[in-house]
Amino acid sequence: MKVLIVGLGLIGGAYAYRLSQKKYEVYGCDIDSEAISYAEKKQYILEGSTDPKKYIEQCDCIILGIYPQAILHFLETYRKYFKKNQYITDVCGVKSSFVEQATVLAEPAIYCSHHPMAGKEKVGISYSEECVFEGANFLITPLDRTPKSIVEFLKGLGKDLGFSKITVISIDRHDKMIGFTSQLTHAIAVALVNSDEDMETKNFIGDSYRDLTRIAEINERLWSELFLENREYLLDHIRHFEEKLNEIQTALIQKDKEALKTIFIASAKKRREMEK
Amino acid sequence: MKVLIVGLGLIGGAYAYRLSQKKYEVYGCDIDSEAISYAEKKQYILEGSTDPKKYIEQCDCIILGIYPQAILHFLETYRKYFKKNQYITDVCGVKSSFVEQATVLAEPAIYCSHHPMAGKEKVGISYSEECVFEGANFLITPLDRTPKSIVEFLKGLGKDLGFSKITVISIDRHDKMIGFTSQLTHAIAVALVNSDEDMETKNFIGDSYRDLTRIAEINERLWSELFLENREYLLDHIRHFEEKLNEIQTALIQKDKEALKTIFIASAKKRREMEK
Repeated sequence: MKVLIVGLGLIGGAYAYRLSQKKYEVYGCDIDSEAISYAEKKQYILEGSTDPKKYIEQCDCIILGIYPQAILHFLETYRKYFKKNQYITDVCGVKSSFVEQATVLAEPAIYCSHHPMAGKEKVGISYSEECVFEGANFLITPLDRTPKSIVEFLKGLGKDLGFSKITVISIDRHDKMIGFTSQLTHAIAVALVNSDEDMETKNFIGDSYRDLTRIAEINERLWSELFLENREYLLDHIRHFEEKLNEIQTALIQKDKEALKTIFIASAKKRREMEK
Repeated sequence: MKVLIVGLGLIGGAYAYRLSQKKYEVYGCDIDSEAISYAEKKQYILEGSTDPKKYIEQCDCIILGIYPQAILHFLETYRKYFKKNQYITDVCGVKSSFVEQATVLAEPAIYCSHHPMAGKEKVGISYSEECVFEGANFLITPLDRTPKSIVEFLKGLGKDLGFSKITVISIDRHDKMIGFTSQLTHAIAVALVNSDEDMETKNFIGDSYRDLTRIAEINERLWSELFLENREYLLDHIRHFEEKLNEIQTALIQKDKEALKTIFIASAKKRREMEK
């Protein structure tokens, strides 16, 4: 199985690193020749180039590890080289905004999107080996018309990469859920850190603040795209979160201890169930 | 140095466990005789009783590992046994609401409050050995009139317990800062988990959701007290946090990518500086 990874960033690099140790022949492309040299030197890839044309036709699968808006641009630019029975996929964190169009642009190749739910608050291939996929969720998001063969291929890919739980869902459901578990959490962490206006806060932090704000060290180019491409769901989730925060505010204003307890009992129960 | 620990819960137990390995003679009290048996069996204490009178007069220091509202009740009940030059302290997570009064009630003993910024989302002495104090902040909160000798004693206590950073601050500043780094983070985590109304969320979580919601498994008795005793500061912090979340909302509604990037760059910079 010959695989071309387009975009040797944190995730593309982690895929190359892991797949090259399995039964895959891995090639790599990036606009940054230093990322390619790094991947070659570390033997994540057999070889790489800044020009994807060099590998597209000979590869069985193309994995796009690039930003949401770059995906359609890539497909438009290189569509004349795509072949029948070739698989194309991407690792993007939002789906509804482009997958329909990507599927058309990829023809005659077969397109199916997926989302590896793991990463780090770091940018670039030099952190790729630190990406932990074990224990993490791997989501495959076919359209109704997507051939089963690529879904099966992606299940194997997720397994080979080391992911623990592989789930197949629609792009809409994906974006709704990810808007909650990923984009909302990032919005909250960012707002929390930005609401800190004291110079000495770090002398007063415990694990809770440290854990809640880790993801506020955010890649602004990637996440501004993800937020905007999933803005409807994200706005819904923010509103709903604010309603729940307002319930706490109201209980505080009214000095209503029983209301606070009820709110805390509910969250503790829900959080415990999550770990089951 | 003879120490009486009142309240053999998670933190009281952790203090007993650690101090008994140092130069302290540790005695323990709790309303729950099972907690006492556990502490005796594990040799966290030399001996214990449900009746604090048994040890108060012979101890050099009394550490109150009990809930905020129980502190004043304890001091009122046992004040006739307190001695001159005896130190009394507590581990409570809020200060302004009771320290002034506690200092008076403790006389002729010397009172000074402190706050060990470490814990777990678990209740009870059986989790005490899992409390990690290394790397954590230890805050000492004297009043203007508090004798220096107890502040120095508490610095030594914090060091003997294993804390990494010991800071002396006023009770007001403590409550303002802790309202932000501790109570606000708990309010956010609780609201986030309670805003989840999907049965399958756990299939779609990554590290970010897991980290942000860990503390939503909250002890409702303790935290309803902490929230209410620090409600003014906490309400201020919630309002300010919501303003910052609204900035993200506005950028999303206006599809303003540059505004989002500016917000993310600010949070990333601030979060990186926190780790320095």
